[in-house]
Amino acid sequence: MADQVRNSVEVLAARLADAGSRIRPILEELLPRGRQDFLSDAVWHHLDTGGKLIRPAICVLTCERLGGRAENALYFAAAVELMHNMLLIHDDVEDGDTIRRDRETVWVKYGPANAINVGDYLLGVAYRAILRSPVGENVTVRLVRAFTEAFETTCRGQALDLNCRAREDLTVGDYLEMVTLKTGRYLALGMVGGGIIAGLDPIALSPIEALGESMGAAFQIRDDMIDLTAGKGRGGVTGNDIREGKPSILYAHAVSAAGPAERRDLVRIMRKPRQETTDADVAWVRGLYDRLGSLEFARAEADRLVERAFETIERIPVEDKGFFRRLTRYMVSRTK
Amino acid sequence: MADQVRNSVEVLAARLADAGSRIRPILEELLPRGRQDFLSDAVWHHLDTGGKLIRPAICVLTCERLGGRAENALYFAAAVELMHNMLLIHDDVEDGDTIRRDRETVWVKYGPANAINVGDYLLGVAYRAILRSPVGENVTVRLVRAFTEAFETTCRGQALDLNCRAREDLTVGDYLEMVTLKTGRYLALGMVGGGIIAGLDPIALSPIEALGESMGAAFQIRDDMIDLTAGKGRGGVTGNDIREGKPSILYAHAVSAAGPAERRDLVRIMRKPRQETTDADVAWVRGLYDRLGSLEFARAEADRLVERAFETIERIPVEDKGFFRRLTRYMVSRTK
Repeated sequence: MADQVRNSVEVLAARLADAGSRIRPILEELLPRGRQDFLSDAVWHHLDTGGKLIRPAICVLTCERLGGRAENALYFAAAVELMHNMLLIHDDVEDGDTIRRDRETVWVKYGPANAINVGDYLLGVAYRAILRSPVGENVTVRLVRAFTEAFETTCRGQALDLNCRAREDLTVGDYLEMVTLKTGRYLALGMVGGGIIAGLDPIALSPIEALGESMGAAFQIRDDMIDLTAGKGRGGVTGNDIREGKPSILYAHAVSAAGPAERRDLVRIMRKPRQETTDADVAWVRGLYDRLGSLEFARAEADRLVERAFETIERIPVEDKGFFRRLTRYMVSRTK
Repeated sequence: MADQVRNSVEVLAARLADAGSRIRPILEELLPRGRQDFLSDAVWHHLDTGGKLIRPAICVLTCERLGGRAENALYFAAAVELMHNMLLIHDDVEDGDTIRRDRETVWVKYGPANAINVGDYLLGVAYRAILRSPVGENVTVRLVRAFTEAFETTCRGQALDLNCRAREDLTVGDYLEMVTLKTGRYLALGMVGGGIIAGLDPIALSPIEALGESMGAAFQIRDDMIDLTAGKGRGGVTGNDIREGKPSILYAHAVSAAGPAERRDLVRIMRKPRQETTDADVAWVRGLYDRLGSLEFARAEADRLVERAFETIERIPVEDKGFFRRLTRYMVSRTK
């Protein structure tokens, strides 16, 4: 990136952090700490792990950029953050993940039953937050609809994710469908909600939704690459997706590109229960990804999606498109 | 019951069955069968276990009785049924229950991860159903609010349930608080939604909400008694609540009424993991309940709640209160 671009992305990052900090008090209001209700402790155990409040921040800034008032978007933004966190809590139970952001996951600390129930509860709180938005009833209904569609779509993507693990015939197309459902729609949600609150009509919203989908897919590809190269805040362990047999873009590429013998070995390793997958297995898969150029392929796919995002931005009915370009660069910068 | 009352309750049962049958096509429309999405099969595996669609039927009939059109209530009624079923699917994972309505539970057949995700998905579909209601935006917002409040309250009740198992100091008061949260609010929801659609204002709705809470608590007490006497559609096995250490009214009464030695033994048995609880343990607890008169106590509590329900009905702003009386009798008749 040129220096000027890098600077403007850094300015955006600071503004996102600032917007994110406006969400914390809303979460504290919606979920008072220290209640003796067998929910509060688990909720805050999870929320206090941090998280950069990036999704709600995007919602607030998008609303402003499209001519709305940031104040009106805060509750919906909080709802997006709550959905994100209830999905993480449930995901961790579903995947058996024990560490999240270098801390015990909710199900490890409070048991799977409480983790499931706490996640359910947070979704209820998210809807409660939407209903507190200081907007008219017609806008509230549109927000509830957008939120519900994104949630449903995410669950459909999660169903593909859960049931495509170590599939021999997984294609990159299947992968992209899955991540668009699972990651794209709910990353788009903050922007879409911000647009609704700013008063955009459904036609004007459609490129924003499409932008979120490209951005979400690129973001997920980045996440897959990070898992292999740096680890995802699980004590720095890399290769978790291999241990869990997750359908990452690297797997989707390699299983399509490998010859029959290597494909058979790859699938065999991916199908092993996590605790039986050895470090040597992970190293072998990593070597295969290297030989097949899966990381380069992933990087190229991410670039292609960013290109598409930039094209989509041209269709957003706003004069200053720089915000959306910087946002796209920011969200995928770690893939570069 | 006098013959005439019995007859009118039977007429009501037939009308409820009829109203319930109008919900099935809505569920089929919301959730098309046979989709290759790793959701549809699990959803219908569960929904096809039957269930009497009693909650949505109550919604539809209440709407009619309060002067609304049944047609307008069908989607909200379906949403209530979907919430009920997503809670059952999650409950079965949380409790480790393997059989529901004499069939394998979703998590046994499709794995816990899919069961959690399918439950989440159904909640999304429930909100989608609410949004399809042919009512104005102001009514839609009220329906979303009522639904969300009931869902959140149910999760709060479930949190108490999960964390009060085999508690030594559980009182009947704790139990009633728990079931009012866990069962009352969402049993009330169908009636409340029916009332909203019929155009009742919040003040007029308040006795309907209170009625649902009394009725829900009485219904849950009935359920606790049935678990001990007839079994709850789990292959006719009785005493499941004892095996699972669940805080039933029988346990709440006995643990308060027993002397120190018997209390210690009772708590010890309730705390055993299910598979270690022997038939002799269950028989001993049953004997203790007999000696302490816990079943009689439960029956008297249910009667008291029915009395309270009847008093509440007097405050519902409708001329013909007979429907609500018959409904109350119908819901708790199996405790008699």
